[in-house]
Amino acid sequence: TDTKIYLAITLKCFYSQKHQIYKTEPQFTEKYFTQTLDHFNFNSMGNGTFSQRYLITDKHWKKGYGPIFFYTGNEGDIWEFALNSGFITELAAQHRALVIFAEHRYYGRSLPFGKDSFNIPQISLLTVEQALADYSVMITELKQQLAATDCPVIVFGGSYGGMLSVYMRLKYPNIVAGALAASAPILSTAGLVDSRQFFHDVTADFESIAPECRKAVRGAFHLLKELAEFQDYDRIQSEFALCKSPSSAQDIHQLNGLLRNAFTVMAMLDYPYSTHFMGSMPANPVKVACDTMMSGSNLLVNLRNTAGIVYNATGVLTCFDLYSLYLECADPTGCGLGFNSMAWDYQACTEINLCYESNNVTDMFPPMPFTERDRELHCSQRWAVVPRPDWLKTQFWGDGISSASNIIFSNGDLDPWANGGVRKSFSSSLIAINISGGAHHLDLRSSNDADPVSVINARKREADIISQWIKMDRTRLQQLP
Amino acid sequence: TDTKIYLAITLKCFYSQKHQIYKTEPQFTEKYFTQTLDHFNFNSMGNGTFSQRYLITDKHWKKGYGPIFFYTGNEGDIWEFALNSGFITELAAQHRALVIFAEHRYYGRSLPFGKDSFNIPQISLLTVEQALADYSVMITELKQQLAATDCPVIVFGGSYGGMLSVYMRLKYPNIVAGALAASAPILSTAGLVDSRQFFHDVTADFESIAPECRKAVRGAFHLLKELAEFQDYDRIQSEFALCKSPSSAQDIHQLNGLLRNAFTVMAMLDYPYSTHFMGSMPANPVKVACDTMMSGSNLLVNLRNTAGIVYNATGVLTCFDLYSLYLECADPTGCGLGFNSMAWDYQACTEINLCYESNNVTDMFPPMPFTERDRELHCSQRWAVVPRPDWLKTQFWGDGISSASNIIFSNGDLDPWANGGVRKSFSSSLIAINISGGAHHLDLRSSNDADPVSVINARKREADIISQWIKMDRTRLQQLP
Repeated sequence: TDTKIYLAITLKCFYSQKHQIYKTEPQFTEKYFTQTLDHFNFNSMGNGTFSQRYLITDKHWKKGYGPIFFYTGNEGDIWEFALNSGFITELAAQHRALVIFAEHRYYGRSLPFGKDSFNIPQISLLTVEQALADYSVMITELKQQLAATDCPVIVFGGSYGGMLSVYMRLKYPNIVAGALAASAPILSTAGLVDSRQFFHDVTADFESIAPECRKAVRGAFHLLKELAEFQDYDRIQSEFALCKSPSSAQDIHQLNGLLRNAFTVMAMLDYPYSTHFMGSMPANPVKVACDTMMSGSNLLVNLRNTAGIVYNATGVLTCFDLYSLYLECADPTGCGLGFNSMAWDYQACTEINLCYESNNVTDMFPPMPFTERDRELHCSQRWAVVPRPDWLKTQFWGDGISSASNIIFSNGDLDPWANGGVRKSFSSSLIAINISGGAHHLDLRSSNDADPVSVINARKREADIISQWIKMDRTRLQQLP
Repeated sequence: TDTKIYLAITLKCFYSQKHQIYKTEPQFTEKYFTQTLDHFNFNSMGNGTFSQRYLITDKHWKKGYGPIFFYTGNEGDIWEFALNSGFITELAAQHRALVIFAEHRYYGRSLPFGKDSFNIPQISLLTVEQALADYSVMITELKQQLAATDCPVIVFGGSYGGMLSVYMRLKYPNIVAGALAASAPILSTAGLVDSRQFFHDVTADFESIAPECRKAVRGAFHLLKELAEFQDYDRIQSEFALCKSPSSAQDIHQLNGLLRNAFTVMAMLDYPYSTHFMGSMPANPVKVACDTMMSGSNLLVNLRNTAGIVYNATGVLTCFDLYSLYLECADPTGCGLGFNSMAWDYQACTEINLCYESNNVTDMFPPMPFTERDRELHCSQRWAVVPRPDWLKTQFWGDGISSASNIIFSNGDLDPWANGGVRKSFSSSLIAINISGGAHHLDLRSSNDADPVSVINARKREADIISQWIKMDRTRLQQLP
């Protein structure tokens, strides 16, 4: 907990600095919306409200006529998504659309109870349902304020934000005409995919560079395991440049988690150009990692340097602090750091199922099981909650979505989340798009000279489908009394 | 409040007596389901559960294959609905279906906190969303327990129960294949219909018997108004056989409400044969009322005797007690009595909009406005809540349901609720059925020799459509992994 508080403070400074940078971005205006605190309980917390942040730009908008492109914010500062989803504003220019990026409650600056938001019971108003209700109420009221009641609304989102876009179309098709859900793992988070899938697919990315890359990673983890069995903690500290020597099986477990997480992040963010999303990443990081893994003869140093691509991009760290660089939580793919990590841990402890395991057989990582029982233990201790593994499937339909319409499920085949989502079209209006050579929601990013042709084509197809949705919905809206 | 407690006790005895009668009904078995207390808050009230009652019969069921007919219980004891919805079991015999009647939380014996359920904040877990989640979880788990996962589920409901059936299909089409929503006022309760519609349509029923009937009622209320203006309370007491003399404008207001409510009840329950649903009613009560109103020359006595059709069906009352026969609440069409009335008042104070007025111009009743402001005042005082008039439309789509499918909206044109619902088909799978000469959800009742041909035809058409839904959904369910 001390670590977390320390991190929270660090991250807060980090965000304020970032915020300064963001403010120089002229396109979006930052605003706050007075939002209902609890949509599902009329006696809760005195009918309160909170300030929900959103970013808006009418630079391209044909007032009162052009559509509204609404990003359903996910687990982070909304600027982070706005600055990494340039496709939406590019498309807005074509369609003369209003663009809104709405921040998810309990993330960024949309903290309903300020710093107390992560206490019990204040945290309990953090649910998927509340977030969707926030967006529905916000869209409805902003449309009235902006004299835009006849303007079709299209929702966009990436990753968990893409799940929210899907859910908006499932649960509020009265409000949104269609959803572009990029890299949205709606099946795996509902418990419908093999728990080994995620780390298997991370592994496959590195193997696709070279089978030797996978072997090197596996070998390095094996060496680490042997050193740990001999309790050769000094050697481990020096090889991995750790600030403090490990001294327990728990420390080794933490080191394994931290190292595995570096590979996860690089697989997700394996873009063909350098990026500054969830940290700084070189172009083609998986390739860079494999080059690093296969560079010298010391596998452990190679592994350390590979992790450094993620944790020491700037090169300023002289040693790695095990517990400040990585936080173990109810999401084995990583919860991030700071306040956001607490909120996401809570979500992974309640509605979102993320019981993914590595096992060293179907993947290259050390066996790190994370069972439903492990999850329950962590979640009851940390948040006094019991997860409901079947709830997401019941509430948001799981694979029973065939009656829905107007959703694009885009996925890149480099993305370890892809196979947790919808890869085959359900119908002519529930459309799966595959982006060959694409990482995590690459299609949402701005056009780039290094873009593979697959993503260029995917964006064109998405634009065409969205045009049709807008046309159809305009007719519907005009026919309403 | 004293009156309410007194009534609650009376009603409790009444229900136990009834329960004895019900128990002789062999078809249904009464069971209890362990239900999640709060679906939308994981930290609320210690992850608790409550016992939710349901009635079940597999008398006709082809085990593991036949469909499931599920009644989404509304604001009352579930036996009341089970015993007055014989069409569902008749249809079950045809389709070899399993039949379940689920009781709505906070009604009947499904009180999450026993007698404390109507305290603040315990009452706050009474919402439409919680009720829908209850039914979704119950269906999902019972299907597993009964080895019925491939059996299509059709939901049925009348009135508010019909609204719930619609909402189940809108929000959980993964779970229910279609909905028969009888007399479901989904538009007026979302604030989308003129506030004068309801009492206008009550009036129209009486006028259709004879214009003189309307005139007589209007005349009687006018006489009452004049007596009240002269404060001739003794005369009012004797003409209306009141147990206590009225002594204030408030008492007169209460008397007007009680009288108006008698007409409402008779219009709703204007069946062609005598019934025992929401009290005892003669065949064609509107006709009986008009005969009574036009019988002797003393309009006030006629009005008293007309009210007696509703309040003194058994003839045992020697006088009318103003405050025990009728309860003013946030629903101007009546909240009923006892515990149930408290729960319904809370719902009318939060999500369900029922700001209907009479005005003596578009209807035959005294002007009794009930504005949003009146509602707010009552609801904040009684329940410490502020109604959210726009919420139902946002959450349950209002008139924006065109993307939905597999819903029948049936309405009888005698029913004052009919024009608060969907009267015209939206599409080939959002079907409005009109029942000429039909009162409140007549189609859900058992076949009867006195049935008009319209309801016989409506039931046939409903049966055909439901057959198609079952066929289609069986294919869908079998294709799921």
